[in-house]
Amino acid sequence: MPFQLGSPALDAVPIRLWRRLITRRLKMSDTGLLSYPDPRGDLGLRQALAGYLGVSRGIACDADQIIVTAGYCDSLSLICRTLLRQGDESWFEEPGYFQARYMLEAAGVVLTPIDVDDGGINVDLGRSKAERAQMAVVTPTHQSPTGVSLTLPRRQALLEWANDNESWIVEDDYDSEYRYRGRPIPALKSLDRTGRVLYAGTFSKVLFPGLRLAYLVVPPSEVVRFGETLSRYGHGCPQLPQAALADFIRDGHFARHLKRMRALYAQRRGYLQRALQTALSDRLSVELQAGGMHLLARCVGEERDVELAERAKGAGLKVEALSTWFADDTDRAGLLLGFTNIASEEDAIRLVSELKRAFDD
Amino acid sequence: MPFQLGSPALDAVPIRLWRRLITRRLKMSDTGLLSYPDPRGDLGLRQALAGYLGVSRGIACDADQIIVTAGYCDSLSLICRTLLRQGDESWFEEPGYFQARYMLEAAGVVLTPIDVDDGGINVDLGRSKAERAQMAVVTPTHQSPTGVSLTLPRRQALLEWANDNESWIVEDDYDSEYRYRGRPIPALKSLDRTGRVLYAGTFSKVLFPGLRLAYLVVPPSEVVRFGETLSRYGHGCPQLPQAALADFIRDGHFARHLKRMRALYAQRRGYLQRALQTALSDRLSVELQAGGMHLLARCVGEERDVELAERAKGAGLKVEALSTWFADDTDRAGLLLGFTNIASEEDAIRLVSELKRAFDD
Repeated sequence: MPFQLGSPALDAVPIRLWRRLITRRLKMSDTGLLSYPDPRGDLGLRQALAGYLGVSRGIACDADQIIVTAGYCDSLSLICRTLLRQGDESWFEEPGYFQARYMLEAAGVVLTPIDVDDGGINVDLGRSKAERAQMAVVTPTHQSPTGVSLTLPRRQALLEWANDNESWIVEDDYDSEYRYRGRPIPALKSLDRTGRVLYAGTFSKVLFPGLRLAYLVVPPSEVVRFGETLSRYGHGCPQLPQAALADFIRDGHFARHLKRMRALYAQRRGYLQRALQTALSDRLSVELQAGGMHLLARCVGEERDVELAERAKGAGLKVEALSTWFADDTDRAGLLLGFTNIASEEDAIRLVSELKRAFDD
Repeated sequence: MPFQLGSPALDAVPIRLWRRLITRRLKMSDTGLLSYPDPRGDLGLRQALAGYLGVSRGIACDADQIIVTAGYCDSLSLICRTLLRQGDESWFEEPGYFQARYMLEAAGVVLTPIDVDDGGINVDLGRSKAERAQMAVVTPTHQSPTGVSLTLPRRQALLEWANDNESWIVEDDYDSEYRYRGRPIPALKSLDRTGRVLYAGTFSKVLFPGLRLAYLVVPPSEVVRFGETLSRYGHGCPQLPQAALADFIRDGHFARHLKRMRALYAQRRGYLQRALQTALSDRLSVELQAGGMHLLARCVGEERDVELAERAKGAGLKVEALSTWFADDTDRAGLLLGFTNIASEEDAIRLVSELKRAFDD
């Protein structure tokens, strides 16, 4: 559906290349592809990821620290099983990614919502509300859903808090690859000198979600404990796509694909931004952030975002209401609109006019 | 490793056919393969499974009741999330499948071990030990690990208990397809008139474990609740292998493959049985059951099975000790030996003589 969040451009997935890589791996007739996979993930993929993370995200880690999972929620579940106990507390961004919220609550974690402002999560507020929390789950590069970046002083303050309390930080770096202005920000993990940060990445946003592959980087001190959890509960991910993905990264396709996507998304973001500004500036004000895969458009007037999103949905447009990403009541109203699958200026104009019509109906 | 349990014959996986099916699906360039998959699983696969289960396992169900998962443990986790609360109680076979034990305990389920004898789990004992349990997890076709089948009176008694208490029964039918004498026993689920049974199957044993695909049949009354759990926590399994697997079943390959495997495994079971009888009958007595993918050989003398298994492991032979499959202390000693990857009479003789040497060293 148009405006869907978090989906990559499906018309730009390198499907022919992917087919070739899968076919090549299939032809190798490697019986390793048939057996129970290593629950930590394919070694070749983990090595390729270690290389990628070093170059692109400033993260020094080796393959031993990397675990391949079936998605971010799978990564979270693994973290909870390994590091937390029922009733342990975690900071959670307010607003924040609801799927992670569900998963953490199901795992018995008590979440304390910590407000996000223009500089990202308010660490001082976190300390005053829940100094002794065992964990903080954050999206430092592009906060989900506001898109703001966590400032450097806040990054340092967050790490300091985690050190003081021996708490864990989960860095969800879901779409860090997409940044359209300024220099890429290294991951929070790259500043982590004491091994408090668990870094979570995914291929759902950068390749395609149907792949169902994500990964987790754990501190060296926790490798053994995570290994124990995996040997008890891990079933591992299918081997074939992991092997093909390792080739995709190693052969340089991944870096080229990301470069292409960055240019494409910058363009598509522009299409949507201009169309909204032209047609809906009396109701919506777009806050352009440095990166991400969607726009946040604040409601200018007194309209309820939930109602606007409902009307859009009625017209087949998958716009989300900002307020539903809050755990507590909020008066902050806005709409979240994915732009990755808007293929042209004309497309954007047409979709925005459909949106306008839906609002007015 | 030789004697490994629960692995299908890796030399008999129809890898060329599988490659062809994967390639064919890849060529279709279906963007459905790229998007977030339906968390319930590929509709085509679920339809194919409904047909297969009707014909082969006597289970009348439709695709709506079927959920594709990443493995049996994933199915269990889904059941716990949907139907149980922290601290709920479940019967668990004694001895029983330890991986399931870990998973249930991690989900906060309190397990009551219920003895298994020649007729399967002792239902009367279950009622006297834990009448009010919310669940029972059983392997009725070939009990894991003893291989015995749950008798018909016990099946009826188990269903009656579940009805009386509105409890759930999880039927783990992991290798029911492999039965070497007598007629196939229909699934316990086929006798379930009131919708108390959750039926769990897997493709790890009948196709190959690296596939990471399994499934769950839920009662019609619970379809909506499971759907809610999935929409909260489900991420779905990769699309491509699901689509290829649907073709594999629909085009009749699955039925043919099973038929071939049944003949092959009957043969390989014979190899191992005869080799054990010839070389080790002074120490081990093989209890031949009607089906399964491994043999249970009871210790004839006073030897500790854990010690024998340790010695075997030292010689690179992956034999398991029966006593480690018990939650409580037990004096029942025996060894579990997988036969699926023993390719010839000579292989069996060689491996058993290695085993004998390891015992004697």
